[in-house]
Amino acid sequence: MSSEKPAVRLALLGCGTVGSEVVRLLHEQSEDLTARIGAPLELVGIAVRRPGRQRDSDIDPALFTTDALGLVKRDDVDVVIEVVGGIEPARSWLTESLKAGKSVVTANKALLAEDGATLHDAAAEGGADLYYEAAVAGAIPLLRPLRESLHGDRVTRVTGIVNGTTNFILSSMDATGAGFGEALDEATELGYAEADPTADVEGFDAAAKAAILASLAFHTRVTAADVFREGMTGVTAADMASAKEMGCTIKLLCIAQRGEDSAGTDSVSVRVHPAMIPRSHPLAGVGDAFNAVFVEAEAAGQLMFYGRGAGGTPTASAVLGDIVAAARNRLSGTRAPSESSYAHLPIRPIGESVTRYHISLDVADRQGVLATVAGVFAKHEVSIATVRQSGRDEDATLVIVTHGAPDANLAATVEDLRSLDIVRSIASVLRVEGGA
Amino acid sequence: MSSEKPAVRLALLGCGTVGSEVVRLLHEQSEDLTARIGAPLELVGIAVRRPGRQRDSDIDPALFTTDALGLVKRDDVDVVIEVVGGIEPARSWLTESLKAGKSVVTANKALLAEDGATLHDAAAEGGADLYYEAAVAGAIPLLRPLRESLHGDRVTRVTGIVNGTTNFILSSMDATGAGFGEALDEATELGYAEADPTADVEGFDAAAKAAILASLAFHTRVTAADVFREGMTGVTAADMASAKEMGCTIKLLCIAQRGEDSAGTDSVSVRVHPAMIPRSHPLAGVGDAFNAVFVEAEAAGQLMFYGRGAGGTPTASAVLGDIVAAARNRLSGTRAPSESSYAHLPIRPIGESVTRYHISLDVADRQGVLATVAGVFAKHEVSIATVRQSGRDEDATLVIVTHGAPDANLAATVEDLRSLDIVRSIASVLRVEGGA
Repeated sequence: MSSEKPAVRLALLGCGTVGSEVVRLLHEQSEDLTARIGAPLELVGIAVRRPGRQRDSDIDPALFTTDALGLVKRDDVDVVIEVVGGIEPARSWLTESLKAGKSVVTANKALLAEDGATLHDAAAEGGADLYYEAAVAGAIPLLRPLRESLHGDRVTRVTGIVNGTTNFILSSMDATGAGFGEALDEATELGYAEADPTADVEGFDAAAKAAILASLAFHTRVTAADVFREGMTGVTAADMASAKEMGCTIKLLCIAQRGEDSAGTDSVSVRVHPAMIPRSHPLAGVGDAFNAVFVEAEAAGQLMFYGRGAGGTPTASAVLGDIVAAARNRLSGTRAPSESSYAHLPIRPIGESVTRYHISLDVADRQGVLATVAGVFAKHEVSIATVRQSGRDEDATLVIVTHGAPDANLAATVEDLRSLDIVRSIASVLRVEGGA
Repeated sequence: MSSEKPAVRLALLGCGTVGSEVVRLLHEQSEDLTARIGAPLELVGIAVRRPGRQRDSDIDPALFTTDALGLVKRDDVDVVIEVVGGIEPARSWLTESLKAGKSVVTANKALLAEDGATLHDAAAEGGADLYYEAAVAGAIPLLRPLRESLHGDRVTRVTGIVNGTTNFILSSMDATGAGFGEALDEATELGYAEADPTADVEGFDAAAKAAILASLAFHTRVTAADVFREGMTGVTAADMASAKEMGCTIKLLCIAQRGEDSAGTDSVSVRVHPAMIPRSHPLAGVGDAFNAVFVEAEAAGQLMFYGRGAGGTPTASAVLGDIVAAARNRLSGTRAPSESSYAHLPIRPIGESVTRYHISLDVADRQGVLATVAGVFAKHEVSIATVRQSGRDEDATLVIVTHGAPDANLAATVEDLRSLDIVRSIASVLRVEGGA
């Protein structure tokens, strides 16, 4: 398929798992891509740290350079694709590119979540496109719908499983009854977890994605620092068993919610933590290393987007989609919808976020225990939804699920319970989501 | 939020369930919409058949007109929104609008599926935008991802539950063991089925949507006439019970698949029929009147989009998203990606589509029956995956699930089985999807 139009010229920063897949797809799909864009794409350079490293032999070695900044400064580059990750030097390269009016396609969630403002400001200054579909939930077309489809609607809540590693671990704990350590070992063996899994299991990766999702959903700048974060290393086999008894499973969720704070101000709460969700919830069935994002909007109602959240090829698919969009815009002399942050909503601290707790207590099996325990909840104005009591010899277990209450009240309730004589131990505390 | 830019002016054709919700959302969200677009939206006219009918009192009666063609011809109209449905006069109005360079937002699946080409050609002639997110799967942002996100990828298959009425009926049959008639009655009572449910239960509605999805997924013009269609009125309580025994459920699926036909030509198969799918498949859990579309692409892998497929408010949400996109394009002097039909793939007839059958036979319990039956399959080169035989007195039931084979071979096998003396009756024949 020939084209009269001159090629759109691409510079690639990084050639690891995702980058080499981008190169492969650009090559394999070149005929389709030319048809869809109306002009061919031409890769003019690939910045890497070690050009001598063994790579796919199909790549012309003359394309490699170690001078990334020099590459993005070239006058003949139209679109810069960044798949290196990390804050610096990626930020300098992309800021330079955008200010010079070059379109940027990036998968760099850490940079977007920590300092997206700098990139968006540079894009506005240079009148350039900034696309980052691959930064959240890999191959799932999610950011474009949030950016471009739901903008006649008002999103009230986004609940996502956005980290494949932890979803694999929790799905495995759910299926086999394994503990966290055992399930993590399995994930590591199968290549789903990195040697140092901290970013995944402590929720840092999910928190970065939560910040990006919340920014788009609520037209408000949200950074990773605004996100309440609690990892899932504390989830035990006993917690999972308890969840099962309640007809629930446990997922590491990112939750971004719009609502009023205690003073009645329209505001945004963004948090990442493990939570019980009912098995009937569409997110409960998202197994393996899949990702899914559940969106609630005033008019659209409930939506869910599901797919592969990671991996070289799925992520490269999202990058390619963005490249085509950026290339089409350049040819037609237009721009994508730019950053939308007009709402400027304040961030609500976790203490003011309304959550529900599942609390499992080992208590002395004495008369009046339930009354004492219930009194602590009442003192903090936390309403109890259900209590299950099961005795064994001198001890009993109380499993209490609350109604929604400010997280600070729930936390204070747990603190007070801990100091009661009749409470031998607090076996588990988990938030509950997705219920009525 | 004020804007220096002049308003983008809208004409609305139709003011029923969806239209009145569009008007309400335009009014309620006007501040947000202005912020997102960069200019206000102004509704300048609403074409209806009976302007005197009782409507939402918030609508200025001066906006109503019975002269739809006159309205779309007005020079001061920028975007025409059509929520009337049907082929004519909608086609004339929209063709007129597009040729004159006015952007069109339509929810008219019947028109797009029967004669989308006329609309796309008119859009090309007038250099105008044609958006129709609401035409398939209501509120779910699905067409935009197919049009704009996956275009760096190659879609191989789209499997959808795109009709809420039949999904409600089948979900109810699955949950309660009810027969089709009983479940249909329930759907009618609850307002999920229309008084005349033919378009839904016979698969016409799903076939129209299948044509639109296939056109977008495969860059090929596909019309409703190209879609093999089989309704779900023949699905019995016994079929559902049989599906359950196999760990499956039954859904009315629309399936669009790209692959090679018997001559090795890259081609497209599009069909709508009830099918068994394993409970482990993400589509199996789509209950109630929800819609979901499962997309398989070479690079992206498996994706699913889930949400409300119908209803005034969800559909209006999709319409609003399109209005914003069209308005933004007008302000920036650009166009959306236009129709992409460069692939021109031929349509494969159902006989050449590879499917799998589940066949339940009542046979005489005699020696050699299985050998005879298996011989019929072998004669038509259909490979058997599993056989379950259960005897009762003189009769036995054989439940046979095949491997994939051309549908014509499977149909011929069933025809031959019917003529065997030892086959008393063929209790059910259902296609099987989503398996290995």
